[in-house]
Amino acid sequence: MSEKLNQLKEILNEVSDLHHAESVLEWDQNVGMPPGGSEARGQQLATLGKIAHEKSTSDEVGKLLEDLKQEFTDHESDEGALIRVSAREFDKAMRVPAKFVAKQAIVTTQAFEAWVEAKAKSDFSIFRPHLEQVVDLVHEYISFFPPADHPYDTLLDDFEPGMKTAEVQTIFDDLRPKQVELIKAIKSSKQVKDDFLHKKYSEKKVWEFGETIITKFGYDWSRGRQDKAPHPFQTTFSVNDTRITNRYEAGNPLATLFSAMHEAGHAMYEQGSNPTYERTPLAGGTSLAVHESQSRMWENMVGRSLPFWEYFFPELKKIFPSKLDGVKVKQFYKAINKVEPSLIRVNADEATYNLHVMLRLELEIGMVEGKFAVKDLPEIWNAKMNDYLGIVPPNDAQGVLQDVHWSSGLMGYFSTYALGNLVSAQLWEKINQDIQDLDDQIRKGKFDSLLGWLRKKIHVHGHKYDPQDLVQKITGSKIDSAAYVRYLTAKYSDIYGL
Amino acid sequence: MSEKLNQLKEILNEVSDLHHAESVLEWDQNVGMPPGGSEARGQQLATLGKIAHEKSTSDEVGKLLEDLKQEFTDHESDEGALIRVSAREFDKAMRVPAKFVAKQAIVTTQAFEAWVEAKAKSDFSIFRPHLEQVVDLVHEYISFFPPADHPYDTLLDDFEPGMKTAEVQTIFDDLRPKQVELIKAIKSSKQVKDDFLHKKYSEKKVWEFGETIITKFGYDWSRGRQDKAPHPFQTTFSVNDTRITNRYEAGNPLATLFSAMHEAGHAMYEQGSNPTYERTPLAGGTSLAVHESQSRMWENMVGRSLPFWEYFFPELKKIFPSKLDGVKVKQFYKAINKVEPSLIRVNADEATYNLHVMLRLELEIGMVEGKFAVKDLPEIWNAKMNDYLGIVPPNDAQGVLQDVHWSSGLMGYFSTYALGNLVSAQLWEKINQDIQDLDDQIRKGKFDSLLGWLRKKIHVHGHKYDPQDLVQKITGSKIDSAAYVRYLTAKYSDIYGL
Repeated sequence: MSEKLNQLKEILNEVSDLHHAESVLEWDQNVGMPPGGSEARGQQLATLGKIAHEKSTSDEVGKLLEDLKQEFTDHESDEGALIRVSAREFDKAMRVPAKFVAKQAIVTTQAFEAWVEAKAKSDFSIFRPHLEQVVDLVHEYISFFPPADHPYDTLLDDFEPGMKTAEVQTIFDDLRPKQVELIKAIKSSKQVKDDFLHKKYSEKKVWEFGETIITKFGYDWSRGRQDKAPHPFQTTFSVNDTRITNRYEAGNPLATLFSAMHEAGHAMYEQGSNPTYERTPLAGGTSLAVHESQSRMWENMVGRSLPFWEYFFPELKKIFPSKLDGVKVKQFYKAINKVEPSLIRVNADEATYNLHVMLRLELEIGMVEGKFAVKDLPEIWNAKMNDYLGIVPPNDAQGVLQDVHWSSGLMGYFSTYALGNLVSAQLWEKINQDIQDLDDQIRKGKFDSLLGWLRKKIHVHGHKYDPQDLVQKITGSKIDSAAYVRYLTAKYSDIYGL
Repeated sequence: MSEKLNQLKEILNEVSDLHHAESVLEWDQNVGMPPGGSEARGQQLATLGKIAHEKSTSDEVGKLLEDLKQEFTDHESDEGALIRVSAREFDKAMRVPAKFVAKQAIVTTQAFEAWVEAKAKSDFSIFRPHLEQVVDLVHEYISFFPPADHPYDTLLDDFEPGMKTAEVQTIFDDLRPKQVELIKAIKSSKQVKDDFLHKKYSEKKVWEFGETIITKFGYDWSRGRQDKAPHPFQTTFSVNDTRITNRYEAGNPLATLFSAMHEAGHAMYEQGSNPTYERTPLAGGTSLAVHESQSRMWENMVGRSLPFWEYFFPELKKIFPSKLDGVKVKQFYKAINKVEPSLIRVNADEATYNLHVMLRLELEIGMVEGKFAVKDLPEIWNAKMNDYLGIVPPNDAQGVLQDVHWSSGLMGYFSTYALGNLVSAQLWEKINQDIQDLDDQIRKGKFDSLLGWLRKKIHVHGHKYDPQDLVQKITGSKIDSAAYVRYLTAKYSDIYGL
């Protein structure tokens, strides 16, 4: 075993520990920190980020990586993959000054607090000056990198290594008319009934039923937990401590169930990572799109399927007999798949979801290009909502303030949600070839073959393969929208009798 | 303003951030971490501890402190105090190798998990090998320091700067017979009735009533929160984020109220620290004894006083009418002050509490001297309980496994609990001279004069004055037991008609 590899790993381990400590501090910020803690938390995150950055970009790391690149040339080996991924991260980190990282941590900590308040009061003006600072930081960040085909490429590459803005635009340009056509066809069909979904379901019982479902999925509670937060998310402190958060909205009580499935999908990906990758850059998911393919698969392919509810609906009815009195499973299935242009991305149905994502991508590209000013975002948001979905948010909380991402400095991220949908469908077709009785298993509440397949084909590999390579390796093609269009068409043809 | 002072502060700020990050990780370990997270958490804490230690002990810090000691010679100034306190911490930290700190973090993380399990199963054998490792670490730690009058001095000094084992032993030797005599006098008096305390009080309602009380005290929730943990404690992430934990024991439901007052007493001390001390070693409390004087004052001098319950008892009765039917406030007051030798330190009455502490001090000194082996602790514990209090724990959970401290590597700590009692009484006499109508204020549920006095005389000074100096400054004498004996005697003479 190379002595130099050990030296590198020792440093990578410490950097990983620092990043995981940051994640704990950020998690706490979301689930429990009293408001007074904000300023100090920003400073703490800035310090941890600065030290991690210094350690990641030391001359020592640079030299070790140079030498190790010569020694480990087999990219199929774990060692080769570790060197390759670490070298890429090193090259990126070297371009970003430590001072910038520290500043970013402070700005985004304050921006997050402002966003929470702005959303609660539905007042964009509270968030606006913070978002302006975030956009300035984004421009500064891009300036550290060599000019790309498009400045947005630099942002996208951080979340979807190797992907170009133009590629995403091509995929979306192909997909958009097909989704629009589908939505039109649905619109001219008879709408499904879903009034029983919007009754008062007890928060506690819904929360617990969500836990029942994800326990059945195989989410390992000895290595995780679920907490309440303003926005559902998944976070990882270790392969053995990957947590999720969730929320309850009175107007959409059962959304909590689907958020639980979604976040558990992310968490099971992280829990399935090869334990030998722990404390190295190979641990965790390979990209956001692949990550999202996991969450969306559990939420939609599984959690909004008829076989799934053939198993779970009787249980749900037992818990809420009066709410679901007289409702048949097929009706329930149709209701949870009702297509209707709506305001909130995370609660959007599968047919309209990607349009929400495309809107955000256009806004981000507009901000990066300097075409859109932050002050005009609410107006632009509302105009695009009207264009794409024919509805206008009655307030900013349900419009431009709905997502946490920008407050955390995350731009370049949103398109991966739609790409994840596409990947989930590509994988789903392959899984159904490999596990021919999958529907029957799901109908019996059995998910171990499915989870086993995902563990073996995807989870265990962590960051070892780049996303496009992994998708190609498993499905025989790169990311594309054909499988997703087939999936949507089949599903909604059944539900809406198209 | 000295350029060198700014340089030093910048480093101290980062070290403080790292320590606060450690505190967040430890807090999470106590209140929510899934069991799987233990190993990684140990590594994360080890890494943070190592980096903080490296930063604290750099040549740069050493040189800055040398120069600054010449520049700031006025110990009454904030700058002078900062240099003095920082130099003392530097001298200590220089003696302890970084490797030791990292090893200690790993050992104590695992020891803590083992303790939780051992306590739950009441099985000392689960904890024993971990405690043996902790004791080895303690011996190794002492070996880094020059020989003191007693090896235990080195441990004590970390918690009570300047205090000697012999001094504590002198104070305790003076106090012990007086407490024993008092307990005897009480034993020969008519016992008070307290059956109504041991009914089933709803956990949720008791928890909320505890929050009502500490809100009245002045605990600032915008800068704190209360969570459930196996052991009540207080922790600080910033002057604006100081949290407490609590628990509920079915057999002793109202203990939750007193734990809330106790931990809030600690937290209000931290919340009152001069904000300009934030992120420096001057922030927070000056010693454990002074800290404990605050928690015990709110818990006992205030929370177990008759005026306090004259205000709160009617409220408590409203919440639990059937439990407290027919109980008069004086009866309730007597019941919560019932003296009875018991097993659990944190629930012990004021007359017997210090004997629990003395037992632990003797065990620790025995372990440090090598006189007591870890394997024999349960037996020694039980024998001493029999000697001092005439009772023997029926199991180790209620005996040697009851306290969290050793599992966290904390030795040298326990005597500060008793010293804190003594200080609380010394301060209480002084406060009652300065606020002559304090009893009347408490009887009206008013605590702002009291908190204001504590803020001004103690809290705001943070770590600026050493404990003995602070006590002397306020009360005119160093730590001694006279006031406490007067306090106990007066209180129990009334309750037991001595």
